[in-house]
Amino acid sequence: MEKMCTVALPLTMNSSEKQETVCIFGTGDFGRSLGLKMLQCGYSVVYGSRKPEMSSLLPSGTEVLSHSEAAQKSDIIIVAIHREHYAFLTELKEVLKGKILVDVSNNHKINQYPESNAEYLAQLVPDAHVVKAFNTISAWALQSGALDASRQVFVCGNDSKAKQRVMDIVRTLGLTPLDQGSLTAASEIENYPLQLFPTWRFPFYLSAALCLFFFFYCVVREVIYPYVYEKKDNTFFMAISIPNRVFPVTALILLALVYLPGVIAAVLQLYRGTKYRRFPDWLDHWMLCRKQLGLVALGFAFLHAIYTLVIPIRYYVRWRLRNITIKQVITKKEDPFSTSSAWLSDLYVSLGILGFFLFVLLGITSLPSVSNAMNWREFRFVQSKLGYLTLILCTAHTLAYGGKRFLSPWILRWCLPSTYILALIIPCTVLVIKFILIMPCINKTLMRIRQGWERNSEHSKSALNGKSDI
Amino acid sequence: MEKMCTVALPLTMNSSEKQETVCIFGTGDFGRSLGLKMLQCGYSVVYGSRKPEMSSLLPSGTEVLSHSEAAQKSDIIIVAIHREHYAFLTELKEVLKGKILVDVSNNHKINQYPESNAEYLAQLVPDAHVVKAFNTISAWALQSGALDASRQVFVCGNDSKAKQRVMDIVRTLGLTPLDQGSLTAASEIENYPLQLFPTWRFPFYLSAALCLFFFFYCVVREVIYPYVYEKKDNTFFMAISIPNRVFPVTALILLALVYLPGVIAAVLQLYRGTKYRRFPDWLDHWMLCRKQLGLVALGFAFLHAIYTLVIPIRYYVRWRLRNITIKQVITKKEDPFSTSSAWLSDLYVSLGILGFFLFVLLGITSLPSVSNAMNWREFRFVQSKLGYLTLILCTAHTLAYGGKRFLSPWILRWCLPSTYILALIIPCTVLVIKFILIMPCINKTLMRIRQGWERNSEHSKSALNGKSDI
Amino acid sequence: MEKMCTVALPLTMNSSEKQETVCIFGTGDFGRSLGLKMLQCGYSVVYGSRKPEMSSLLPSGTEVLSHSEAAQKSDIIIVAIHREHYAFLTELKEVLKGKILVDVSNNHKINQYPESNAEYLAQLVPDAHVVKAFNTISAWALQSGALDASRQVFVCGNDSKAKQRVMDIVRTLGLTPLDQGSLTAASEIENYPLQLFPTWRFPFYLSAALCLFFFFYCVVREVIYPYVYEKKDNTFFMAISIPNRVFPVTALILLALVYLPGVIAAVLQLYRGTKYRRFPDWLDHWMLCRKQLGLVALGFAFLHAIYTLVIPIRYYVRWRLRNITIKQVITKKEDPFSTSSAWLSDLYVSLGILGFFLFVLLGITSLPSVSNAMNWREFRFVQSKLGYLTLILCTAHTLAYGGKRFLSPWILRWCLPSTYILALIIPCTVLVIKFILIMPCINKTLMRIRQGWERNSEHSKSALNGKSDI
Repeated sequence: MEKMCTVALPLTMNSSEKQETVCIFGTGDFGRSLGLKMLQCGYSVVYGSRKPEMSSLLPSGTEVLSHSEAAQKSDIIIVAIHREHYAFLTELKEVLKGKILVDVSNNHKINQYPESNAEYLAQLVPDAHVVKAFNTISAWALQSGALDASRQVFVCGNDSKAKQRVMDIVRTLGLTPLDQGSLTAASEIENYPLQLFPTWRFPFYLSAALCLFFFFYCVVREVIYPYVYEKKDNTFFMAISIPNRVFPVTALILLALVYLPGVIAAVLQLYRGTKYRRFPDWLDHWMLCRKQLGLVALGFAFLHAIYTLVIPIRYYVRWRLRNITIKQVITKKEDPFSTSSAWLSDLYVSLGILGFFLFVLLGITSLPSVSNAMNWREFRFVQSKLGYLTLILCTAHTLAYGGKRFLSPWILRWCLPSTYILALIIPCTVLVIKFILIMPCINKTLMRIRQGWERNSEHSKSALNGKSDI
Repeated sequence: MEKMCTVALPLTMNSSEKQETVCIFGTGDFGRSLGLKMLQCGYSVVYGSRKPEMSSLLPSGTEVLSHSEAAQKSDIIIVAIHREHYAFLTELKEVLKGKILVDVSNNHKINQYPESNAEYLAQLVPDAHVVKAFNTISAWALQSGALDASRQVFVCGNDSKAKQRVMDIVRTLGLTPLDQGSLTAASEIENYPLQLFPTWRFPFYLSAALCLFFFFYCVVREVIYPYVYEKKDNTFFMAISIPNRVFPVTALILLALVYLPGVIAAVLQLYRGTKYRRFPDWLDHWMLCRKQLGLVALGFAFLHAIYTLVIPIRYYVRWRLRNITIKQVITKKEDPFSTSSAWLSDLYVSLGILGFFLFVLLGITSLPSVSNAMNWREFRFVQSKLGYLTLILCTAHTLAYGGKRFLSPWILRWCLPSTYILALIIPCTVLVIKFILIMPCINKTLMRIRQGWERNSEHSKSALNGKSDI
Repeated sequence: MEKMCTVALPLTMNSSEKQETVCIFGTGDFGRSLGLKMLQCGYSVVYGSRKPEMSSLLPSGTEVLSHSEAAQKSDIIIVAIHREHYAFLTELKEVLKGKILVDVSNNHKINQYPESNAEYLAQLVPDAHVVKAFNTISAWALQSGALDASRQVFVCGNDSKAKQRVMDIVRTLGLTPLDQGSLTAASEIENYPLQLFPTWRFPFYLSAALCLFFFFYCVVREVIYPYVYEKKDNTFFMAISIPNRVFPVTALILLALVYLPGVIAAVLQLYRGTKYRRFPDWLDHWMLCRKQLGLVALGFAFLHAIYTLVIPIRYYVRWRLRNITIKQVITKKEDPFSTSSAWLSDLYVSLGILGFFLFVLLGITSLPSVSNAMNWREFRFVQSKLGYLTLILCTAHTLAYGGKRFLSPWILRWCLPSTYILALIIPCTVLVIKFILIMPCINKTLMRIRQGWERNSEHSKSALNGKSDI
């Protein structure tokens, strides 16, 4: 149904109502695409151009006039012109009085100008009602109907009636208007299409740094060390073996970092004895990117899972297993079955699988359409209870992996411990603090603080005052 | 764009329109958060408090007055007070006459009071227009802008204009209002945030019961039996081997239970000769939780897939394979290649993969945003045709797994058959009945019944009468 | 919250506003279901029937009258009657004058009639305001509340007030109205529920053809050839080995076909020297089904991943590995470790995993709810930059798989090269052309063309004229 209105022919409709006319200033790509779309959805379209006689490529069925002539034909004028050329609009002040001017422009850089384009337009033509809209929609998407990215059109403006009329047009074109309030929101609306995953930046750089650090750490321990002492060429470890150490370690640390700000916040509230003092900024920001941190961690866990599953089809592994068998045959050495090894190996694998499964569940519930179908209690249950269970399982998986190795002598190479030992530091810290926090005596105090109680007497009164309030 | 209005400064806007004033009764956490959000989105906010001089922590830019003074400043009053303290509002009856009272309260238990909080409020202040709203939004989410769970605000009320005004506010705050009709819907709206996956409860308990049963069944067959008769310590089977029997069996049975109610319903309609008699309640409930049953089954199938793929990296498996090779070398026994074994092994694996693939596809299409993009014909095609194909493939996978084992003598241990034989009972039953139902003669009768035909003569007339109707 | 209004009892509500009455012509399944739903959401419902005294099974609380009596009770009349029986409405012309007629009908075939049902109704009753709506909703879904497929109700009509009233009803029933413009859109709305994945048809048939071709190609090379020359029975290869050649080849070719139209379009623009000439139709269609092509490719890549991971648990593979070991023991031949083989094997696997990981990421971002949360810059970044990286990794994976084999003599059987060589043709072509296109000199020209510059002088002026326009 995406292109539904593209084939509707407004000329053939036996409608009793008069068609609404929309004026578009500017005959560029976007102006033409928007005009065509409006035409298809039943509007009359008039273009305003500096040189109407030279304008070509316009959709058939539209009219091209001079700016002032075109403006007189409609209440609503879409200004599809670059901000740099807005100046000429001051000459049309008289004609534009009381009309709705829709600013659709975008900039090339975030916060390129001191004020937003829409506010600048409102200053130039103070008697018109300026509404910001359509800047998030691409000309190509309008033409092709392939609105795969957002169909959301952010709308803002100071005159609510003007805003309402623009939102009606947006809806008629099959797009979703989102009211963003007064024209002061325009600068954010104009910055929006220029953003490139702003909330993902910190988790991305953090995980890249962790990956790089652990990669070189492993290269030193597992490639350079054996080369120096045993002249062994282990460089091929860099393709699978080392990534399969780096990815799980990064995943576990990132997952723990999802839950660390929560326990820090709880400790801070306990220490301060109140919930009414703001957290430091870094903690606030950290708390707001927990979802992204978790999803990046899930990506690494996914990679770790596949890298582990391909182990038996690697040439190196097959060669080694074959050689072990042959050596055993030749030396005729018995290799009795060790139940404890079987237990440890199976337990470690099983914990990993269950942890990964819960992790995938967490990932699925953070899909917008899935989390939208949950209420807060359900969302908190999944993200908190299931999340901690995931962390516990993944930490236990790493501990079981260590298993008997923790005390083996060759664990240190050049004083460097194995990576999984480093990986365990943060998760174990988080789990220990969380365990202390949920002990009845401490948990009770924390709950009271979170319900508004304050250790400090002065504030307590006001809290008491508000006890009946939600 | 989540926090768009948080930075908008209403004080600096050069707007010609007067700001709308909203009054909030109660200076608790939620009241403060909502007030701050409203302030940021361009509203004037006035708080009503019992002790205005003692109220602290309120967002700067707001006023605090006594309840009656505050109420006079606005048409819309948000009652952010616990239900237990509503009584004092009866004293304000005069002031509240004709005003819109927004009830935002929640309870601690489902159906805690005989009538909903909003209806109770409407009884206390009969001359005001009570609207229920905002109870599904959390204070923390409003403050942080991290509305990851639902942005949906359920709204209900008896006065449609009052409801409309509240819905406008909801939209301006960047949330999605959902009109739920008259105030009688309030009790459901109040119960909603207290629910914890109500539709998932039955599938969850059912699958837990199945898992537990088959787990102990397998422990008896594969741990206790060998211990008793061969003194073998197989306890480590409980980590991977037994779960990898329990999960596929549970998945297959749950998948079959998704399609069982459909065939029961068809048999019932055939037997009754009409579609106009209601199904028994248990069948209706069963049919409504089919999606959840299927998704739980998919979870178990996913676990089964990973538990199967890790087989070759288990210590036990590597040890056993090595020992088989060594024994073969020592005994110098030939091990000719068996094409039939190769066929059976490959067929069984291949069927499982294809079944799992279709199962994952079914799971993806049941994501809300994906199923929303399909029409009914497509949705039915996927969930019915592809669903049955999945069931057929998974059943065939289990049959091929059985393969030559079905007739082997050691299949029974203490008279207990293998789990996969138990697993096959329900799927095979469903498939056989379905096969009978789609045979032309029976299918034709069923189709006629579903189009309104009735075997019973009396109703037939009325059906005939309605033949021209959709 | 899906069934929220099903329990609301309109009779008990202490509402001051009068209930709105809706009239439904026709007492069939859909009429009854819609009536019940409306009743539950607070409307009064009156049925119009030819034989009111014989109508049964109607929801209690509704009235049944003759058509003309019922029509007088309400402004809005829902025509739940098959198109074939519309004729009698001409007799009611007088009563229906100025009323809103809602056409809810569907056809059995796409474009069954020359004009849509709604337009036919508008011709029959020219003085009524005909609105098309509700045809995409199923009766069963209305009854059960299980609106798993779309809640979207497409609405169109020539009278905007009538359309608005119908959209209000749609909203009150908890469904989402989508305005599709004038009544000419009705034929598309009526065709919509009859469609079965129209955009998926071409990718599906294409991939089926590719699969079949490569399957038989592989059967000839790997089953028939060895049988003819070595009398070996390799038929069991058809279960896993051959699919695991067919699937990756198909996936890689489909992935390359996602990016091929883009480079063809760029070459065409460079050749023509303008972006203002339309692409040939086949190219337009191809560009619009790129998402579907990519998702089908992802499906095959997923199958390839699992088919690869199960390799070590196949009977054939275990038997072969065991035999290699035994042969080595018996012949006492040394098998020195080859670092280059280890590198090649690990590199090939690692590239495949990374390519698959990015491919899955691409798939997740094409979920409607995820892509809706991205702006155009982010969407283009993911689908273009990450997409090309995926193609590069997957092509490199295939090249590394070939590895030393490219020059081996037994690569041709009956003059047929290995499948992976065929698979590489299109991806390598796409990557080479893309590489040429992004070279600075060519890229600069292309960018200028895409910003409106034209090599042809005449058009250039008009482009110049529009330089200030967006």
